[in-house]
Amino acid sequence: MTYQDLRESVWEANMGLANAGLAVLTWGNASGVDRRLGVMAIKPSGVPYSALHAEDIVVLALDTGQTVDGAARPSSDTPTHLEIYRAWPEIGGVTHTHSVHAAIFAQAMRDIPCFGTTHADAFHGPVPTTRPLTEEEIRGEYEANTGKVILECFAARDIVPAEAPGVLVAQHGPFTWGATPMKALEAAVTLETIAQMALSCLALNPALAPIPDYLLDKHYLRKHGPGAYYGQKTA
Amino acid sequence: MTYQDLRESVWEANMGLANAGLAVLTWGNASGVDRRLGVMAIKPSGVPYSALHAEDIVVLALDTGQTVDGAARPSSDTPTHLEIYRAWPEIGGVTHTHSVHAAIFAQAMRDIPCFGTTHADAFHGPVPTTRPLTEEEIRGEYEANTGKVILECFAARDIVPAEAPGVLVAQHGPFTWGATPMKALEAAVTLETIAQMALSCLALNPALAPIPDYLLDKHYLRKHGPGAYYGQKTA
Amino acid sequence: MTYQDLRESVWEANMGLANAGLAVLTWGNASGVDRRLGVMAIKPSGVPYSALHAEDIVVLALDTGQTVDGAARPSSDTPTHLEIYRAWPEIGGVTHTHSVHAAIFAQAMRDIPCFGTTHADAFHGPVPTTRPLTEEEIRGEYEANTGKVILECFAARDIVPAEAPGVLVAQHGPFTWGATPMKALEAAVTLETIAQMALSCLALNPALAPIPDYLLDKHYLRKHGPGAYYGQKTA
Amino acid sequence: MTYQDLRESVWEANMGLANAGLAVLTWGNASGVDRRLGVMAIKPSGVPYSALHAEDIVVLALDTGQTVDGAARPSSDTPTHLEIYRAWPEIGGVTHTHSVHAAIFAQAMRDIPCFGTTHADAFHGPVPTTRPLTEEEIRGEYEANTGKVILECFAARDIVPAEAPGVLVAQHGPFTWGATPMKALEAAVTLETIAQMALSCLALNPALAPIPDYLLDKHYLRKHGPGAYYGQKTA
Repeated sequence: MTYQDLRESVWEANMGLANAGLAVLTWGNASGVDRRLGVMAIKPSGVPYSALHAEDIVVLALDTGQTVDGAARPSSDTPTHLEIYRAWPEIGGVTHTHSVHAAIFAQAMRDIPCFGTTHADAFHGPVPTTRPLTEEEIRGEYEANTGKVILECFAARDIVPAEAPGVLVAQHGPFTWGATPMKALEAAVTLETIAQMALSCLALNPALAPIPDYLLDKHYLRKHGPGAYYGQKTA
Repeated sequence: MTYQDLRESVWEANMGLANAGLAVLTWGNASGVDRRLGVMAIKPSGVPYSALHAEDIVVLALDTGQTVDGAARPSSDTPTHLEIYRAWPEIGGVTHTHSVHAAIFAQAMRDIPCFGTTHADAFHGPVPTTRPLTEEEIRGEYEANTGKVILECFAARDIVPAEAPGVLVAQHGPFTWGATPMKALEAAVTLETIAQMALSCLALNPALAPIPDYLLDKHYLRKHGPGAYYGQKTA
Repeated sequence: MTYQDLRESVWEANMGLANAGLAVLTWGNASGVDRRLGVMAIKPSGVPYSALHAEDIVVLALDTGQTVDGAARPSSDTPTHLEIYRAWPEIGGVTHTHSVHAAIFAQAMRDIPCFGTTHADAFHGPVPTTRPLTEEEIRGEYEANTGKVILECFAARDIVPAEAPGVLVAQHGPFTWGATPMKALEAAVTLETIAQMALSCLALNPALAPIPDYLLDKHYLRKHGPGAYYGQKTA
Repeated sequence: MTYQDLRESVWEANMGLANAGLAVLTWGNASGVDRRLGVMAIKPSGVPYSALHAEDIVVLALDTGQTVDGAARPSSDTPTHLEIYRAWPEIGGVTHTHSVHAAIFAQAMRDIPCFGTTHADAFHGPVPTTRPLTEEEIRGEYEANTGKVILECFAARDIVPAEAPGVLVAQHGPFTWGATPMKALEAAVTLETIAQMALSCLALNPALAPIPDYLLDKHYLRKHGPGAYYGQKTA
């Protein structure tokens, strides 16, 4: 048994982060899971994208977090990814970046309001921003606690990950997810774009109201759920 | 009889949207018509530009909207394009994107004032922004109603499509048009650029006045109409 | 006798405008002169950069403005270029673009203050913005009058073209110049960059003061004039 | 004995400045030292990146500043680099650019506050901005005095170069450094990115507070010092 397919898809999503301009130097990482095999695969820590090969992707046990295949040290953000996968079984891919406009809202600790259909096509409401981590959370298991604060944020707001394929961790940056690593990458591209749009909308009108719920519902449900009619039919 | 030429020109305009940075992922679409054949050709729904080939372009009857050639499901925005072509016989190409700066004005629900000659070379007045669609319009034939609201906007302002090769649909994004798909693409590039300029002009001076009518007329008519003297003579 | 060298250098500067992102579609043009031959060469009107070849460059008599070699119609901005060359014999190349950040200041009708050494390395003072053209000037010989207003601006401020290798025409956009077409292109790149910097400096501090004269002099004279010590010695 | 390795690494860092979009035309330069040989290597003055080859890199004696190998005139900023290397023996590479967003803060004469973890991963506190040079310092040994003002800034704030791999020289632009020319290049990329983020954070909230010290410490020490656990183990 090999992990080749999983490694390929995770490598492809990582390269997509760099190619889309969402990650420079060694910032950012994408991961994927194989639920049947009980493993997560993730970028190795501190490796630049230009030197990254599919065989460098590290494979870990989803339950223990121990490496099961691969020679490199996994991303330092691995515990955050593991928290997300363990809590949300419907998720198959996760990304983390410091993409500029998403990070701006994370640093300013503001949700991104839904100002238009570009946003509503992917997020069924504002992009949520977590509370800042406490000193204890930061001094403790920092990366695992980052995951726990994301989960707490979604629980407190009573939203499920399918409604919001990403989050802004306060004072830090975005995490996004989806059914596959490629879907998580697409959510990262979307989040960066809607952050850029919202930033200038707020400059034009600091009191701009979000779009009405009926437009939000229309666009979100056009792409998601049983009544979706966007895209090609899948057999 | 084949639709090869139409498909090629529509494919080229779609690729132009991606290459000009106006559309990422699967956002945005371009279409074209052959009035003699009574057909419209448009991008298939949800297909990424990197995987798009000319033979994927879907051909529909302009009157019924039914597919006459092509295996894929057409863009979900097809009814908007059809409304525009049916109302304005002089139009041969249409684009729709979520290009960032144009979408910012659409989301902020503001016209783009004509602040300079870059704008006046293409638009004989402000870039109009439609009213938001009502809940009934959104719950009903949403995409067709988007087209109807565009037409209503132009009727209410008493402007013709040749004077303004694009519009901002409130809370959504830009549509542009022209005599051909390539001209519609050029209008999309222009609209994105003048939106970017206007955004920062308003930051420098929120009370900046539009240019006077005599400069607007000079630049618009230098490029359009019987006295135009820009570009090469066409035989 | 041929005009091949002149055409090549003008073609190279025009392609440089497109490659540097200063001109999209058919916007923008570069020209050059051969004073010995008494000719100016310039981009043909309305030709996209991707289709532009050196042999398309049009050659005109500097005194009459009549085409002496070339089949295409010259840029509609030709009379502006001619005014500049006739008034300033030390100039060998001119560009005109609608580059975004320079155009923002032109549209807002504001000089670009000298806020730092990037600016001072090229402009010995603010980037000047002309007054708007009058209705009579626009209805008359518009493009020639654009040149005259540039010259009036420099005369009224008592500055010479070597001190300011560019200008912003109010409500329109930048023109730049230099000893050669390539130097005019470099000035266009510099002007766009310093406009981008100044725009955000003013956002951070609307009352930001220009740099002191002694820093302005130091940087400008480090690169220009008899005491210059930047760059390689030329034999 | 040859300087080939040093020249290659300095050339690579210079090309990296251009490829990362941090330097256009001939602006910006990177250098490196070989402490054992007592030499510094730096970009020649005024040479565009497209024409730069490793053999053009100039090698100078670190103590006297005299050229020991190479035919070209070294960068006019050479005395600034020398001041930095002489004062800080732990530094092996230095860059200077006019990268846009870093230069904006330099021109506005403001520190860049630490608003998030992107910043804290590289700078253990705000990015410091120097005081402006005095008229005497500018009229005197300007480039050497630029270096002295950088050192004065760090002494006055009681910070060491490892805590802040870069500085903004008031009214001018950024210098960055690191153990090698490539590390100095990475610091230049980081500084430009965090400047871009901070600029928009201040637009969203001019009173935004820096992140707390415990988060600053966590991220900085995660990547630097004896407890670092980011990246791959080095043997």
